[in-house]
Amino acid sequence: MSATLRVIGVGPGDPELITLKAARAIAAAPVIAYFCKTGKPGHARTIAAAHIAPAHTELRFEYPFTTEREVTDHRYAIDMAAFYESSAGTIAAHLNDGRDVALLCEGDPFFYGSSMYLFDRLARVHATDIIPGVTGMSGCWTRAHTPMTHGDDILTVLPGTLDEDTLAARLREGEATVIMKLGRNLTKIRAALARTGLAERAIYVERGTMSDEVIRPFAEVSADRAPYFALVLIPGRQGTR
Amino acid sequence: MSATLRVIGVGPGDPELITLKAARAIAAAPVIAYFCKTGKPGHARTIAAAHIAPAHTELRFEYPFTTEREVTDHRYAIDMAAFYESSAGTIAAHLNDGRDVALLCEGDPFFYGSSMYLFDRLARVHATDIIPGVTGMSGCWTRAHTPMTHGDDILTVLPGTLDEDTLAARLREGEATVIMKLGRNLTKIRAALARTGLAERAIYVERGTMSDEVIRPFAEVSADRAPYFALVLIPGRQGTR
Repeated sequence: MSATLRVIGVGPGDPELITLKAARAIAAAPVIAYFCKTGKPGHARTIAAAHIAPAHTELRFEYPFTTEREVTDHRYAIDMAAFYESSAGTIAAHLNDGRDVALLCEGDPFFYGSSMYLFDRLARVHATDIIPGVTGMSGCWTRAHTPMTHGDDILTVLPGTLDEDTLAARLREGEATVIMKLGRNLTKIRAALARTGLAERAIYVERGTMSDEVIRPFAEVSADRAPYFALVLIPGRQGTR
Repeated sequence: MSATLRVIGVGPGDPELITLKAARAIAAAPVIAYFCKTGKPGHARTIAAAHIAPAHTELRFEYPFTTEREVTDHRYAIDMAAFYESSAGTIAAHLNDGRDVALLCEGDPFFYGSSMYLFDRLARVHATDIIPGVTGMSGCWTRAHTPMTHGDDILTVLPGTLDEDTLAARLREGEATVIMKLGRNLTKIRAALARTGLAERAIYVERGTMSDEVIRPFAEVSADRAPYFALVLIPGRQGTR
């Protein structure tokens, strides 16, 4: 009988923002898997470190590249697919041997998580269990003391990888809006915010809930690039009651 | 010196989906506050029950009405404002006496949470700390085994209280979409989904992560009303890698 793949959200960064369920599931799983950059400890693993013991078998899945290759490069999709296929195979071997695997994921696993690509490959054959986590955006807006959505507010979440016209169009019709995945897209996002007159209301949050977090009005941010774990918040209407 | 108001997200319903930080903060606070319907234990309090002891002082804020009065009724806003004002005053009295207050909130406090109306009234004068929680929608899409947003997908969150034309327009341009607050809006939401051809792809989740959860294709739901803790999920593009 095959074992269970547990896809586990570990939250936005503060190790205390992991759920009781996730902490217990990680401690109980014989095998812990996670994505990481080459030579780095892995962000999800760092968040979950308190629940991992030497007796755990660890599976490190090192991304073949991160920012060195453009998403528009046709080799990007091919090489990432091969990487996910290989990682899924490694997990499947453990599951077939009867060992449950805990796959760690920053934030919430089904909200822009890489773990979905492994889930998509493994869920048809293996038992799966997904444990939700606190999203990066919830971590950021609470740390920024910024209530986001009241009453009838619509929330729109925009990946910063979208083109400037799409960003501007969606910002224009948005109420509460979050822009994720800033990275190299910061200059383009600044232009879209300027076109829509929203730059003054926007809040920039970098590494929200982590020890080195940065929170400031977007208008005061002058850099051309931001870390991957940065986002822009435009709160919905405020104080309507 | 004034004490601290801690606004605490307790997650989507499963008591195990509370964070370590929230559990500790609730146990440590001398005063626990929460909203509830008249004569009911309070949903947030039920989720957090394992961390509340007899030594805690409890502040129950009973909504003056829930579904008995229409939001469009002009007295709705007036009476709710008075209710929030009175609740904020009760909390302020404890804070002024030096007692920290933990205000419990289902899901994430700054994502459609009633606690924002107390935060808005208290944060200018009192120290505040907000602890994010797992949202109801994360709880629902993970339980439905439905990855929601991949890569460049835009996520739109629509309150079901919007009018049918607005719902249909936003559904038409949406990629991944969540419709919250179903309740009495279910018939209108069904019509909007039918107009946009999305009914077949939509998933209905009621009380996700709770012991009595219901998950089924939306097309198989024939009721005219749903509980407040129900939502509709339309996942983004799938399996693109």
